[in-house]
Amino acid sequence: MNDSRVNDLLAFLRFPSVSTQTDHAADMRACAAWLEAKLSSLGFTAEVRETGGHPAVVAKSPYDPAKRTVLIYGHYDVQPPDPLDEWETPPFEPTIRDGRIYARGSTDNKGQILAHILGVGELLSRGETLPVNVTFLVEGEEETGSDNLAPFLERYRENLACDVIVISDTGMAAHNYPTLTYALRGIAALEFRVSGPSQDLHSGVFGGAVMNPATAVARLIATLHDQDGRVLVEGFYDKVRPLPEWEREALASLPVGDESIRTLAGVDQLFGEKGYSAMEQIGARPTVEVNGIGGGYQGEGTKTVLPKGAFAKLTCRLVSDQVPDEILHLVEAHLHKHCPPGVRLEVTCGHSGEPYYTDPTSPDGMAARRALKEVFEIEPALMREGGSIPILTSFKKILGKDTLLLALASPDCHAHSPNENFPLENFFNGIRLSQAVIRELGTVSRQPAA
Amino acid sequence: MNDSRVNDLLAFLRFPSVSTQTDHAADMRACAAWLEAKLSSLGFTAEVRETGGHPAVVAKSPYDPAKRTVLIYGHYDVQPPDPLDEWETPPFEPTIRDGRIYARGSTDNKGQILAHILGVGELLSRGETLPVNVTFLVEGEEETGSDNLAPFLERYRENLACDVIVISDTGMAAHNYPTLTYALRGIAALEFRVSGPSQDLHSGVFGGAVMNPATAVARLIATLHDQDGRVLVEGFYDKVRPLPEWEREALASLPVGDESIRTLAGVDQLFGEKGYSAMEQIGARPTVEVNGIGGGYQGEGTKTVLPKGAFAKLTCRLVSDQVPDEILHLVEAHLHKHCPPGVRLEVTCGHSGEPYYTDPTSPDGMAARRALKEVFEIEPALMREGGSIPILTSFKKILGKDTLLLALASPDCHAHSPNENFPLENFFNGIRLSQAVIRELGTVSRQPAA
Repeated sequence: MNDSRVNDLLAFLRFPSVSTQTDHAADMRACAAWLEAKLSSLGFTAEVRETGGHPAVVAKSPYDPAKRTVLIYGHYDVQPPDPLDEWETPPFEPTIRDGRIYARGSTDNKGQILAHILGVGELLSRGETLPVNVTFLVEGEEETGSDNLAPFLERYRENLACDVIVISDTGMAAHNYPTLTYALRGIAALEFRVSGPSQDLHSGVFGGAVMNPATAVARLIATLHDQDGRVLVEGFYDKVRPLPEWEREALASLPVGDESIRTLAGVDQLFGEKGYSAMEQIGARPTVEVNGIGGGYQGEGTKTVLPKGAFAKLTCRLVSDQVPDEILHLVEAHLHKHCPPGVRLEVTCGHSGEPYYTDPTSPDGMAARRALKEVFEIEPALMREGGSIPILTSFKKILGKDTLLLALASPDCHAHSPNENFPLENFFNGIRLSQAVIRELGTVSRQPAA
Repeated sequence: MNDSRVNDLLAFLRFPSVSTQTDHAADMRACAAWLEAKLSSLGFTAEVRETGGHPAVVAKSPYDPAKRTVLIYGHYDVQPPDPLDEWETPPFEPTIRDGRIYARGSTDNKGQILAHILGVGELLSRGETLPVNVTFLVEGEEETGSDNLAPFLERYRENLACDVIVISDTGMAAHNYPTLTYALRGIAALEFRVSGPSQDLHSGVFGGAVMNPATAVARLIATLHDQDGRVLVEGFYDKVRPLPEWEREALASLPVGDESIRTLAGVDQLFGEKGYSAMEQIGARPTVEVNGIGGGYQGEGTKTVLPKGAFAKLTCRLVSDQVPDEILHLVEAHLHKHCPPGVRLEVTCGHSGEPYYTDPTSPDGMAARRALKEVFEIEPALMREGGSIPILTSFKKILGKDTLLLALASPDCHAHSPNENFPLENFFNGIRLSQAVIRELGTVSRQPAA
């Protein structure tokens, strides 16, 4: 395929911009520099700005004070690509098969943010007057919790002032099904390590008289849920808003339900909190999930060792009105309360983000729905999503504006998984959607400054 | 130090003879060839013999049909050296510090078997007539369960016929404290894997509706023991012989107790089955121990993944009269019974070995105790040990003879751990012990052939 837009995406995807791994710091900078050059070439005033961590790229269209300003946010950092041996083609050698482009980051979030950049850039580079002022903000720390973004927004509060924010980092309810997501779960991450003997011991020579740290980690994890998956951490559900009947009905009417989620997950049967559909469990109920567990011998065969330590990495997904720091304290207290004797427990809290909820019937929400309908030719679904975009809370608190979440990922794009991909159809629809949404948002009357 | 015996040990320890890792197969053969050459140079008739796996080395002194035959067994294979970063010097670059030689395999079991080879070899090479016929059998699969040894003993039953077997692969009750071990725990290894989604999932997008395999592995491990560490697998203790009062008294009189075990293990407090001392928990009570656990993201930072699978590696330590295959079946049934819904469980049974008990007051036992007393100048301790030497059962069943376990390892030699070491003093004592024990065993009257 010789389409310059696709070639741009291929180039963007070749950067191994893994933000959580420090040895990719130079790749991150190279990727940011590429974005800056691309945006400049399209007619934006673009620059790489320091954040204290991986840099962000900011670009602006020529400014007209009479017009509204739309801030389009995305991220150029990606998840680690492992397990590498499960990729059909290497994660940073993007490959097109059956109309999809396979690469780490293709659907999270490089495909989408580049679609917006090329959509607006196409208008700009052919000399059209944009219906709104557009600011792009593309950061490099979304996958590690955007720790530096709130201070960045504080620092550039005036420079980044806008009327509304647009993000395409959510999933469509079904392939080619336009979707406006109005609620996202928050996140609170922690890691705990259990230490026992001063070094790995022979499990025959010492086993029976020493608490095994791997057993201790397992026992701690087993205390987190009841048999049905309901979280047993004391106080965990105290601030969870009950789901109103109208929302349960709206979620039940989506073109996705238990069976499609079961198929997408690739499991024989679903499992979760009793009394809720899978869409409700994912969109409207909180979780504590084990992202990683490890300790002792990991290799081939047997090693008769009683390991000196073991660990688990957890993330909680939160719904309104749970507060991340409160939840982290509750989980930490729970772990300390249940830690077996004979070992030491160390809990390290990680990144966090508040749950998000915005009104899909506001003027901007209605404009977004018109744009979605124009591109996809059906009424968009209104959806709650299970993932987290912690920075929505920062945008609301610091810039004072709501965010429109316009999905461009299909359900089988495998974000965070091996063989992550993005359909070229979605990429081209994204380019059209970007143009439609700035046109529709330009028709909304300006609100007085706060 | 320029002692040819120490130089021999340094050379022996340089082979990375890790039997469980298939990429070390050539190192195994090189190590066996080195042993064959060393034994031949001392006057033994030595050869490397195929076993179907890693080869064994067999060597014999000149045969006198009027004399008893002593078979001295050892192994040249070693445990994997990881975690590598905890070694002060590289595991296969043996280094002498403060009178100890540091290397993987130094105390398990290269130091001891070489002491025996050099002890008997010294007599032979200076033309002395040995008080017994000596056969050396040095195998390469002890650390992986000696799967090929029983068929090997069957095949060479006549060639390896003997009156008694001597092995130095146990630990002294304290440094320089002569020790005859009369009981060892058996072993039964298994690994289980829990599989859920067809691939790693985004823990936000799917978490709450899908059983997490890492959580399932943890929950399964948590079902294995009660709060005090007593095993909850149904039927697990059915065949465990109660500990008679005289043995509890003998174990209590050893120069090692709870406090010394706590210090050796490097833990703040011991943990184990109520009503038993640490020596009893280790020597006379069975266990189920987690040797390794893993699943999901293992790297730096956070990866918000719901892993497709997770695993645990277990070994049970068994006491008389538990039967390894029966115990494996009980544990497998327990795991299947407790596996949560929504995931698949696969159990793979590994190697096993029966528990061993022999009489320390037999004529050969008394001869061994005289030899130990001669070298160390105090009455030897009689001990139960927690480790396993599965092949003792094969020797008993196939060759029909008992085994004398003469300890040469000190308690802080760190078998199976980083910084494994062997004091040169123990090495030289081992050389003397080998000479003393064949002299004492030569004085025992021959038993009629079975």
